[in-house]
Amino acid sequence: MGIGDPMVDEKLAQVPSILKDLGIDAWLIFARESATLHDPCFDLAVGPNVTWQSAFLVTAGGDRVAIVGSLDKPNQELHGHYREVVGYVGGITEDLGKVLRRLDPRRIAINYSVDDTISDGLTHGMYLTLVKALAGTPYAERLESSETIVSALRGRKSATERGRIRAACEDTLGIFDRLTKRLHAGLTEKQVGAMIREEMAKVPGLGLAWEPEHCPGVFTGPESAGAHAGPTEREIRPGHIMNVDFGVRKNDYCSDLQRTWYFLRPGETAAPEAVQRGFETILESIRAAARFLRPGVKGGDVDAVARSYITGRGYPEYPHALGHQIGRTAHDGAGLLCPRWERYGRLPELPVEAGQCYTLEPRLPVEGHGIATCEDIVAVEPDGVEWLSRPQERLYVVGP
Amino acid sequence: MGIGDPMVDEKLAQVPSILKDLGIDAWLIFARESATLHDPCFDLAVGPNVTWQSAFLVTAGGDRVAIVGSLDKPNQELHGHYREVVGYVGGITEDLGKVLRRLDPRRIAINYSVDDTISDGLTHGMYLTLVKALAGTPYAERLESSETIVSALRGRKSATERGRIRAACEDTLGIFDRLTKRLHAGLTEKQVGAMIREEMAKVPGLGLAWEPEHCPGVFTGPESAGAHAGPTEREIRPGHIMNVDFGVRKNDYCSDLQRTWYFLRPGETAAPEAVQRGFETILESIRAAARFLRPGVKGGDVDAVARSYITGRGYPEYPHALGHQIGRTAHDGAGLLCPRWERYGRLPELPVEAGQCYTLEPRLPVEGHGIATCEDIVAVEPDGVEWLSRPQERLYVVGP
Repeated sequence: MGIGDPMVDEKLAQVPSILKDLGIDAWLIFARESATLHDPCFDLAVGPNVTWQSAFLVTAGGDRVAIVGSLDKPNQELHGHYREVVGYVGGITEDLGKVLRRLDPRRIAINYSVDDTISDGLTHGMYLTLVKALAGTPYAERLESSETIVSALRGRKSATERGRIRAACEDTLGIFDRLTKRLHAGLTEKQVGAMIREEMAKVPGLGLAWEPEHCPGVFTGPESAGAHAGPTEREIRPGHIMNVDFGVRKNDYCSDLQRTWYFLRPGETAAPEAVQRGFETILESIRAAARFLRPGVKGGDVDAVARSYITGRGYPEYPHALGHQIGRTAHDGAGLLCPRWERYGRLPELPVEAGQCYTLEPRLPVEGHGIATCEDIVAVEPDGVEWLSRPQERLYVVGP
Repeated sequence: MGIGDPMVDEKLAQVPSILKDLGIDAWLIFARESATLHDPCFDLAVGPNVTWQSAFLVTAGGDRVAIVGSLDKPNQELHGHYREVVGYVGGITEDLGKVLRRLDPRRIAINYSVDDTISDGLTHGMYLTLVKALAGTPYAERLESSETIVSALRGRKSATERGRIRAACEDTLGIFDRLTKRLHAGLTEKQVGAMIREEMAKVPGLGLAWEPEHCPGVFTGPESAGAHAGPTEREIRPGHIMNVDFGVRKNDYCSDLQRTWYFLRPGETAAPEAVQRGFETILESIRAAARFLRPGVKGGDVDAVARSYITGRGYPEYPHALGHQIGRTAHDGAGLLCPRWERYGRLPELPVEAGQCYTLEPRLPVEGHGIATCEDIVAVEPDGVEWLSRPQERLYVVGP
């Protein structure tokens, strides 16, 4: 029934159990003219945009009620995500009150958040409107932030969502394969970046996963910036390690992968021992973290597995988190695989949940050559992980 | 200086006199991650997006100060719209307090609005953050909505802006003309929608004025949804009225026009009397409203002119406003030509201002045939209106 996106139905089906876990009775998404100022939670839990003041209620008991302007009603019904669609003409107050009295939720989470931008779609004007509409009812006093709901919902990827991330990874690895055939010493980071964009343009329907200024990031040699900077005029020289950090968006879902190449010096037939050992250490630290990763373990402990493996082999710690969630954006959801450092606040203590999709991306410096790194993506299954990208198995080597 | 958009500078130059008119000392735009949830006032009064919590202050005295995360500072300076750009590292509170103490505004308008979506870009989470940042200063008590500023700034279209709307209308009418030649009974709403997109694709530089799901809207026959829904598999039959609601975006400015076609039944050479009378009633109600429309009249009274003309001829009221402003978006600016219904708040009482551009779009049902409607666009001149679209003068009739 309905022409709606099946993924929205998958996500809405997850909401009741999330609400039960949190002890929240109802999630209320309140919005108007959602095409103009688009609350990101519409993509997960509403679907089609609305024009007039609209309320979307999902309860722990499985009710789904939409209250929308009468002219938006046919479109909502056509999409079919909400079983009950109430259309009003004069104003939303009366119907919203009626529905709330019937459902009578004690705790009502609404779509704002102080800390998390992606959960903060309710405007202040609409908050004031909602409070006014609920004036004189007990419900005005029962409102709280839905940040935890949005975070759980974004994090726990449905089968369709995982399939889309896998497809974005597959296209990205295809781009890397074609890039590898074109690489040679003497190219600049900028030239490699341009080649990646050329290869991407050959695949229809791909966008960039993050800001174009550093998507891709290209880093060559021992003096490279190493992360979060755009490609420079720095030239790849024999003996360099080069790494690329790149992601695409396909069907609204992102990849974010890193691969590492070594450029042979004259007379070399393989990368030097130091480079090999550094890269093997990265791969082994990723494999160890992936073996440890499962529902219920803390993000800080997952990070510690990879981090201690690397320092145990005599390398310095990587100056960032082991991995972040990925989905509709390259950094998606609160859970993070990060060390217990002040800047990460309470994040290292958050337990990993089934369905979350994480990058794994440690790094280490190989003196005189550059940065050894690799980034792959896994989905957390009930008893382990599923790889969404084919992991890099050996260092890519480019002839002299 | 700077790589910024000259139109942002034009609009920022209008702000001090608007602030003086309103007796407001400073306009404060507060935002974070503005690419994720984009406050529409950024396009008029900020320019480049920001990542971290950011404050943009424009005063009646002509000051322009931006306070942004240190990594956003170079980009703001590059664009050059704000003369003073402060970059912070730890948090915004200290620098925001310093700048406010120096400017010491008595009335501070911030970027939210209860009634006007386009002026309501501040999220509730960010409002709470701002109030916390100003705690213990006198400024937390001086905040008010900047709706009147944004409304005046958006509404008062310059000649350049009006020219862009006219150009978008001209291209839209060209698409309708080419569509008319291709229409025949038996097509589905979806097929008509696809033809409109095909004709649009022939004109370089055009985007859709609103969400692709119902741009165009195509509605045929007496059972059609009538508005705000996408085209369906419903087939055009002889005897149907079909209407199309479509707009394009060209050079950042939009059209939003509706046209109505009648499909002759075998043996008919003209639309039946009931269809003719319905459509003539629509055109006459538009003309009457346009004659009444001028600076200083209230939106509610303009709506009443068309509404009472239609009900006086025995038809039911249209279940929406007569018209909305148009510009950078299809619904642009607070002033609205709408009835005095709860859902429109105080909007019907706002006086029309010179330079505003309005759609005029009443509708009525013709039993057994469909919806008669028409939508054209006018700019408000000091002593009347200027048509930005060539108005539909007679019902389009398609042979059997």
